[in-house]
Amino acid sequence: MEKVAYYNGVFSSLDEAKMPVTDRACYFGDGIYEALYARNGIPFALEDHFARLYRSAEKLRIEAPAKEELTEIIMKALSMTDAKEAFVYFQISRGNAMRQHEFPFTPVPASVMLYTQPHELFDLTKPMRLITREDTRWLHCDIKSLNLIPSVLAAEDAYEAKADEAIFIRDGKVTECSASNLLILKDGEIVTAPNCNLLLPGITKKHIIELAGTLGIPVTERFMTLEEVMAADEVIITNCVTLGANAYEIEGTPVGGKDPERLAAIRAAYYAKVEAECGAL
Amino acid sequence: MEKVAYYNGVFSSLDEAKMPVTDRACYFGDGIYEALYARNGIPFALEDHFARLYRSAEKLRIEAPAKEELTEIIMKALSMTDAKEAFVYFQISRGNAMRQHEFPFTPVPASVMLYTQPHELFDLTKPMRLITREDTRWLHCDIKSLNLIPSVLAAEDAYEAKADEAIFIRDGKVTECSASNLLILKDGEIVTAPNCNLLLPGITKKHIIELAGTLGIPVTERFMTLEEVMAADEVIITNCVTLGANAYEIEGTPVGGKDPERLAAIRAAYYAKVEAECGAL
Repeated sequence: MEKVAYYNGVFSSLDEAKMPVTDRACYFGDGIYEALYARNGIPFALEDHFARLYRSAEKLRIEAPAKEELTEIIMKALSMTDAKEAFVYFQISRGNAMRQHEFPFTPVPASVMLYTQPHELFDLTKPMRLITREDTRWLHCDIKSLNLIPSVLAAEDAYEAKADEAIFIRDGKVTECSASNLLILKDGEIVTAPNCNLLLPGITKKHIIELAGTLGIPVTERFMTLEEVMAADEVIITNCVTLGANAYEIEGTPVGGKDPERLAAIRAAYYAKVEAECGAL
Repeated sequence: MEKVAYYNGVFSSLDEAKMPVTDRACYFGDGIYEALYARNGIPFALEDHFARLYRSAEKLRIEAPAKEELTEIIMKALSMTDAKEAFVYFQISRGNAMRQHEFPFTPVPASVMLYTQPHELFDLTKPMRLITREDTRWLHCDIKSLNLIPSVLAAEDAYEAKADEAIFIRDGKVTECSASNLLILKDGEIVTAPNCNLLLPGITKKHIIELAGTLGIPVTERFMTLEEVMAADEVIITNCVTLGANAYEIEGTPVGGKDPERLAAIRAAYYAKVEAECGAL
């Protein structure tokens, strides 16, 4: 099966998967999610994703199922696909109940929805075009929630502008992109926004920061202006399937391309890490 | 049938209603909604709700079905219920497609989900207890979207505090409540926050402002501090099934109760308006 889905105990093809319209995900976006890359049936950085999932769950007071249960679902879904490389998406909502803003008065179990589809890593030989958008999201962007309309609109704006991503800027500060984090290389150092309520604590970003340590590249976590990003030696975009893409243009102005060696070293270290954990392709 | 549901062409009991997990409402909250009160099978203020729905749709670039089509669905659902008084909820999502932040590359029709259940108007003889919460929502609260986690958390906080609603306060300004608008009576006048990106343009609020005109009660639309609300003669809470409840306490401090005559006049005018449109109970 190419696209496998799971919802509350039932595996099926994604085309056939349904959920009750009373799942609180459907009408409140009342849930959290994780998305990860898997290779050879092995989810990459699963522990990191679980750590972030349970952090999100705690912040929204959602009782997510145990790690062992979720792992079993993920592994079974992966075993049902034929894909060597896959994208695994799973979300936990506050469960099924009549619509009311308050949590269900009679406790209900959280709902689990998952799907997996064949998905290659983003081709790093293709640099990205970026646009910018004002960051008007809520003040809890560290929670990986299902309330994603601003990211949807920003991603669509990027697509319509023939760009690959949109940089969010709040009060003059670059936070992150619609579905990825942003780092720069400048004078041999990495700079990226500090993890806080204004951006997602990206796992790929975290790994790059860790790998930078082993490569002897200093890292500073602080907010940057757009001007600083425009003046960077390299502008780096990361998410779970984009292990360090570089941008060549922001809002039509050329950027980056001035430290390809360090960028290549980071990428090589990252690909080695993935291979060490999930095997070769 | 007590609780009737509709999803993309199919009517059923709400318990049986399902949607594909690929409905963008499920994983992005990528949709809009309206909720209204109906009596004797007649939706109250339907045109107002449509006006707001299409405004929300335009802001999110969702192509909602035509008014005639939605009206037919609403009327059929109401005809299938036995309830004299009903709550009608309907949401329009960007449709069903593989998850990607961008709008579907191959256009798909919007998805329509609706349900109706028996629902009486809020009993206005019961004054409300309120709590306050910091307003950390996105900066598009005028859009009636499915991204409602902050309202969920605030409503739950109110419930756990044995209160009825939570007042949102942003930068010292009272905006609205988790699922209702807030107005006050002070020195014979109504004051309420101005419609803008920070709050929902409530239809019940709009009607009260209109009725105030006929009653000779002046209305000022401006932001208030919590202190002003605490010092009000009456604190009034409105939504589609709450036609002017009054609060008697905010965060444990007594409020209001100082202009019951004007409050009663507003309520009487409102109930007459509902009766004129939907008949008597």
